[in-house]
Amino acid sequence: MLYFNNDYSEGCHPRVLEYLTRTNMEQTPGYGTDDHCAAAAQKIRALCGDDTLAVHFLVGGTQANLTVIDAALRPHQGVIGADCAHINCHETGAVEATGHKVLWLPSRDGKITAGQIRQYVHDHYASDSFEHTTQPKMVYLSNPTELGTLYSRSELASISQACRDTGLYLFVDGARLGYGLTAKENDLTLEDLARLCDVFYIGGTKVGALFGEAVVISNGELKRDFRYMIKQHGGMLAKGRLLGVQFEALMEDNLYFSIARRANELADQIRGCLEELKIPLLVPGVTNQIFPILPDAVLEKLSENFVFCEQERVDETHRAVRFCTSWATRKEAVDALCAKLRELCGTLSQSKSST
Amino acid sequence: MLYFNNDYSEGCHPRVLEYLTRTNMEQTPGYGTDDHCAAAAQKIRALCGDDTLAVHFLVGGTQANLTVIDAALRPHQGVIGADCAHINCHETGAVEATGHKVLWLPSRDGKITAGQIRQYVHDHYASDSFEHTTQPKMVYLSNPTELGTLYSRSELASISQACRDTGLYLFVDGARLGYGLTAKENDLTLEDLARLCDVFYIGGTKVGALFGEAVVISNGELKRDFRYMIKQHGGMLAKGRLLGVQFEALMEDNLYFSIARRANELADQIRGCLEELKIPLLVPGVTNQIFPILPDAVLEKLSENFVFCEQERVDETHRAVRFCTSWATRKEAVDALCAKLRELCGTLSQSKSST
Amino acid sequence: MLYFNNDYSEGCHPRVLEYLTRTNMEQTPGYGTDDHCAAAAQKIRALCGDDTLAVHFLVGGTQANLTVIDAALRPHQGVIGADCAHINCHETGAVEATGHKVLWLPSRDGKITAGQIRQYVHDHYASDSFEHTTQPKMVYLSNPTELGTLYSRSELASISQACRDTGLYLFVDGARLGYGLTAKENDLTLEDLARLCDVFYIGGTKVGALFGEAVVISNGELKRDFRYMIKQHGGMLAKGRLLGVQFEALMEDNLYFSIARRANELADQIRGCLEELKIPLLVPGVTNQIFPILPDAVLEKLSENFVFCEQERVDETHRAVRFCTSWATRKEAVDALCAKLRELCGTLSQSKSST
Amino acid sequence: MLYFNNDYSEGCHPRVLEYLTRTNMEQTPGYGTDDHCAAAAQKIRALCGDDTLAVHFLVGGTQANLTVIDAALRPHQGVIGADCAHINCHETGAVEATGHKVLWLPSRDGKITAGQIRQYVHDHYASDSFEHTTQPKMVYLSNPTELGTLYSRSELASISQACRDTGLYLFVDGARLGYGLTAKENDLTLEDLARLCDVFYIGGTKVGALFGEAVVISNGELKRDFRYMIKQHGGMLAKGRLLGVQFEALMEDNLYFSIARRANELADQIRGCLEELKIPLLVPGVTNQIFPILPDAVLEKLSENFVFCEQERVDETHRAVRFCTSWATRKEAVDALCAKLRELCGTLSQSKSST
Repeated sequence: MLYFNNDYSEGCHPRVLEYLTRTNMEQTPGYGTDDHCAAAAQKIRALCGDDTLAVHFLVGGTQANLTVIDAALRPHQGVIGADCAHINCHETGAVEATGHKVLWLPSRDGKITAGQIRQYVHDHYASDSFEHTTQPKMVYLSNPTELGTLYSRSELASISQACRDTGLYLFVDGARLGYGLTAKENDLTLEDLARLCDVFYIGGTKVGALFGEAVVISNGELKRDFRYMIKQHGGMLAKGRLLGVQFEALMEDNLYFSIARRANELADQIRGCLEELKIPLLVPGVTNQIFPILPDAVLEKLSENFVFCEQERVDETHRAVRFCTSWATRKEAVDALCAKLRELCGTLSQSKSST
Repeated sequence: MLYFNNDYSEGCHPRVLEYLTRTNMEQTPGYGTDDHCAAAAQKIRALCGDDTLAVHFLVGGTQANLTVIDAALRPHQGVIGADCAHINCHETGAVEATGHKVLWLPSRDGKITAGQIRQYVHDHYASDSFEHTTQPKMVYLSNPTELGTLYSRSELASISQACRDTGLYLFVDGARLGYGLTAKENDLTLEDLARLCDVFYIGGTKVGALFGEAVVISNGELKRDFRYMIKQHGGMLAKGRLLGVQFEALMEDNLYFSIARRANELADQIRGCLEELKIPLLVPGVTNQIFPILPDAVLEKLSENFVFCEQERVDETHRAVRFCTSWATRKEAVDALCAKLRELCGTLSQSKSST
Repeated sequence: MLYFNNDYSEGCHPRVLEYLTRTNMEQTPGYGTDDHCAAAAQKIRALCGDDTLAVHFLVGGTQANLTVIDAALRPHQGVIGADCAHINCHETGAVEATGHKVLWLPSRDGKITAGQIRQYVHDHYASDSFEHTTQPKMVYLSNPTELGTLYSRSELASISQACRDTGLYLFVDGARLGYGLTAKENDLTLEDLARLCDVFYIGGTKVGALFGEAVVISNGELKRDFRYMIKQHGGMLAKGRLLGVQFEALMEDNLYFSIARRANELADQIRGCLEELKIPLLVPGVTNQIFPILPDAVLEKLSENFVFCEQERVDETHRAVRFCTSWATRKEAVDALCAKLRELCGTLSQSKSST
Repeated sequence: MLYFNNDYSEGCHPRVLEYLTRTNMEQTPGYGTDDHCAAAAQKIRALCGDDTLAVHFLVGGTQANLTVIDAALRPHQGVIGADCAHINCHETGAVEATGHKVLWLPSRDGKITAGQIRQYVHDHYASDSFEHTTQPKMVYLSNPTELGTLYSRSELASISQACRDTGLYLFVDGARLGYGLTAKENDLTLEDLARLCDVFYIGGTKVGALFGEAVVISNGELKRDFRYMIKQHGGMLAKGRLLGVQFEALMEDNLYFSIARRANELADQIRGCLEELKIPLLVPGVTNQIFPILPDAVLEKLSENFVFCEQERVDETHRAVRFCTSWATRKEAVDALCAKLRELCGTLSQSKSST
């Protein structure tokens, strides 16, 4: 079986493992106060072009989301996100478990707009009984989104401005940030993120690390006492240096970006094949996630050799599925997937063309 | 100004005040352990036809909702309600503040169906990653709903069966239950509610009391340790007898039902007038809440003498508003409202008729 | 039976009931936005000598405590109180249910000191692993305390200074504040409280109201969005005017203070009798609570005619109990209690004197 | 510098790293549903002699504690522990952040007794106002305790019986369980723990793993839906197999136990030296933690070459500190520590002997 179901099927990139092995017997203080964490944080600050940033390393995405959101909000405040936001749909109510309502906005492509945010905040305060509803105080975006789409620099700048105008924090979940920053159409940089967001994170788990997310905080209010919050939510790793070491490896020699770029290129190859076969996509994409809409019969055949993810049923005979590439995806596996798609869908494509 | 904006503009029905005055100097134990609470609970058990019911008196609706829901759910569990459910829209995230996500279903008339509930639960467990989403464990209904509509006995029975089949609790918010049980089209009884729900409450605040909701629990699991939950959530009134005394008054000689029926009849008079004037309603209704759609110009004029509630904008020149009657509404005020409506909308109605 | 077990056995002072009755049919807006609440708040601001204070009316003490504390603290922060503090011992973990640890200090008389507070905060930050422990951020006092003792103005000023020096909020629970402010030895005023505390409340439930506590906030940070917090915690009464009306009555013509003073005087009569009989007290007191230590045999006899509260076992044959007076206590009842005590303990006293 | 400050200064035991390296490029499903987790769980079930146990792998101790406790308790319930319990003192109020009060019992040696537990539960229900206090529902022990002491099989059996008699769950935190089970005086086995506890965990972080705690649940009520709870609290590792692989390594060929035994033996060597030097211990111990009481002057000298942990000040000139050994401690380091202690304390010992 060849796995295209996600970007966390393997362990870590060999270089990361090499760093972990090399430092294994070092003696360091615990809980993220070691030199490796300090060095990794400094590299990230340098890449973001801002020496005042607070950088903390957490083990996983849900943990990062719930810790950041709980640290930022007072009890009566909620966080705005897209309907399909990870915090709204895939974290077992982790944000609500910290007491905060997720306030969602409708979205077709996984993105929300500055206009939607402004309208939501306006409507909240325009109501006679605004104190009877959750006060919006933070915006949560994923970039890339759940559907693999990207925010442009100008879109993010507009959202950032909307947040500042309305007194909201802007938080970007970058669980797959590497794939976003290295996509062909991307015009965002780490410096932009550090400047436009109050807090964001650089995902390691899905981009070459064993685990780990680097939370980057620019807003002084959110920096305050953040380590207490990590500890309270069970996110403070005793051997915190494991996170520092991994991010040292990823941030060195551009590794994080080069492995993400390669995964995008393999995904581009699959996208090219799908286009050639006239297979429609659920949403257009440029990163390592692809959401083709395929006939059930084709998917059944395909599943004999390939593992992929179910996304949603589109009509009675078609489903959207997800193919994912990663730093670990082999070129041969992509070639095999494309060959199989051509074999199974070639006729389909021809018959479509002829009509 | 004449107030039709809600059903809690005045104090309490004179008979309730009389009971409070008469018992004022009695010495009783605190925290709801007094004889008045016991007597009121016994009357409610009798009206429900079930001697095993637990009855607790809480001060208000939000408090009742959050206490019941928090008592019933484990941390990973959520409560299903209509999109417009009070717990979803008007309680400042009180349910989320106890850690639980509100899982909403779309609704046009404020009601949800057994089919929707079954589908939701099915979809939850059908997912590969069901443990990554909030587990549905309770259904929350309001009867009457936020829009003044009613569940029929057969609808409630279907929902109850769906809940039992899928392992969910059924909770009915009866903040305006009196108006529901005495509406012309209603076929539900307190006995039905006690039999079909795991827990429901009989609202006093909006039906003649100064304050107070009688929570009625039939499910043994939910009965357990409920007083701890009341105390923890700040709902245990030191002079608990105030709640017992008020419900004694309301449950005696059918007072609760007779004052609600009268309010419905006054609302019927307004509905008759609106129908005669061919003024459309946002939703058809049979209880003490009426949601007419009126031209902005008419509403502006009307607001010179009458207080009502904004509901929603319908189009560029029309808004839906809410008129409410209550035990305290005077016949003269209703006559005045109808006269004014005829004066303002008569032409409108005629011109409509003529086209 | 004559009740001395607490100060909330009856309804409300007749003048309060009169106000409620007189205003019963008034039509007012809901949720505490009415003129009565505004007028009562204004009276309280005037008595506190500070026009900038925020005043909110809540139904009960546990609700006031949990709402104020949850509004003030970030998730990793806790509240310091005496070991016997109401929030630590008598609220079913209501503060913890909002996510915050109660950090207690040992106390013999129900009071804590500025020195204890400074030491606690010092020790917290002096620890290597301070981020692994709850950050102290608020001090909670009761005045009178659980044991009926009082803070002097100089003690409260020292505590206030300690809080300001260490960045903590000072919160005074005044559930029985009236009895404290009118005690013979008291030198504190409402003006002092408003000046020295960040937030405190004036208790109505135990001093003549049916229910109700007036929360007074001087610190701007705590004023912000407080109504959202009340609503979220189920404390926003639909007929909020009931709270305003009661505090109007209590604050008019010094009623609140005159009824509290009378209760203290009746308690003084009991204290005088106990002293005369050489019956020791658990703690010396000057307010409406008295904690005599009596032989089990005497208490058994006494309980045939009098209701009182168990406090604690002192030795194998003696227990401390609590007698409470209130605005509703009759002089005749006090005379009867004193007579009975003399009858039961006279010999005891004589035998003691003779040894 | 030689590190004796804790047992998590290094990475992992070489054999664990070898397993991680060997399996790095395997493709597995995520979130702990892989074969390595299944195999490790099966090994643990076998060692515990109970095929019905649920085994879940979590990243760290605080996470394990808060997830287990929150999964087990209803909102009004609390967990009993020793005053020095990790959940009470070193987790930034993580348990309170899930809404539950930690109910502590005094302890001199880090242990609590069946008698204390029975008394606490008895006193709770004996109170008139028991519903105004947190209901005890779980007992939390650490074994070894915070002070390195151990529960004997008979002590644990008594506590287990007390819990069953009073309806409480028994939860044992085994962050350092390996050191406990291999201590010379120990008579407990994994089979005992599985039989006597409702839930316990086998700590990996401090016994040779990079990270990871294996939570073992025997009580059916606690097994239910536990994976939802892990996910909600941010504890579900995407690459869950990392935990499975590490526990496979540790549970193979007795590795977990042999490395723990060796650490205990090195600690015994230090204890022998301290005894020889007549240096008193804060508490007697048999595991990898040692708490000698030493003169400040000696500690100052010692700290030039050795890193250790401050425990508490004992008197004006003496402090208790902690020395820890681990799987990674070298014999040479222990020899050096003992030599230094002899050098610094030899005279002290002699002068003591001569007096």
